[in-house]
Amino acid sequence: MNRIRRHEKLEKINLSEKFGKLPNGDYAVGLIAKMSDYDFKIVKFKGDFVRHSHSGTDEMFIILEGALAMNFRDQEVEVHAGEMIVIPKGVEHKPSSIDGYKALLIEPEGVPNTR
Amino acid sequence: MNRIRRHEKLEKINLSEKFGKLPNGDYAVGLIAKMSDYDFKIVKFKGDFVRHSHSGTDEMFIILEGALAMNFRDQEVEVHAGEMIVIPKGVEHKPSSIDGYKALLIEPEGVPNTR
Repeated sequence: MNRIRRHEKLEKINLSEKFGKLPNGDYAVGLIAKMSDYDFKIVKFKGDFVRHSHSGTDEMFIILEGALAMNFRDQEVEVHAGEMIVIPKGVEHKPSSIDGYKALLIEPEGVPNTR
Repeated sequence: MNRIRRHEKLEKINLSEKFGKLPNGDYAVGLIAKMSDYDFKIVKFKGDFVRHSHSGTDEMFIILEGALAMNFRDQEVEVHAGEMIVIPKGVEHKPSSIDGYKALLIEPEGVPNTR
């Protein structure tokens, strides 16, 4: 293989490899890519997250492994691997997962993922 | 199950189900979600696409099944299921796949996916 790689941005991103670099524990988030002004983050989580909302932006969850229950004020939606959900801006949500999940998160840059 | 579903936007999206609704053939694109001003599209493709570029925007490919060779002017990057690649705006690229691939495409709304 004698490929010329002048543009570092043209490297592909392997999701398993990126998850392997996250710290141990039930919760971790890692920034893996940027596209225009959007951040692509990987997240692993097990347990009950805090109920929160993002006032300025929608947030996309693409579930890669496991499953979570996304609790809204008046409903709960179970989201499994191979499924995705858009959390509209301003909508309170609380992700919970007994056995844990891994997901790809997409949101504008600068949104904090505080617990 | 007696869940209240007042907000249709809070429905989850199942990727396999969405792929099942695409027309038969080697190439099809379907819009499955919107987040702020970005489109989330599913695409299936087998063969040689045309070399093209998008002058105004980056484009994200997340490969869900199969593999493709992304041909740039001075390099080729093979991208497999579980991997993703950002095509920077203005960069010419030609996706090719002998056995076909399925992917999630993310780009600003209004970008044409012409062949």
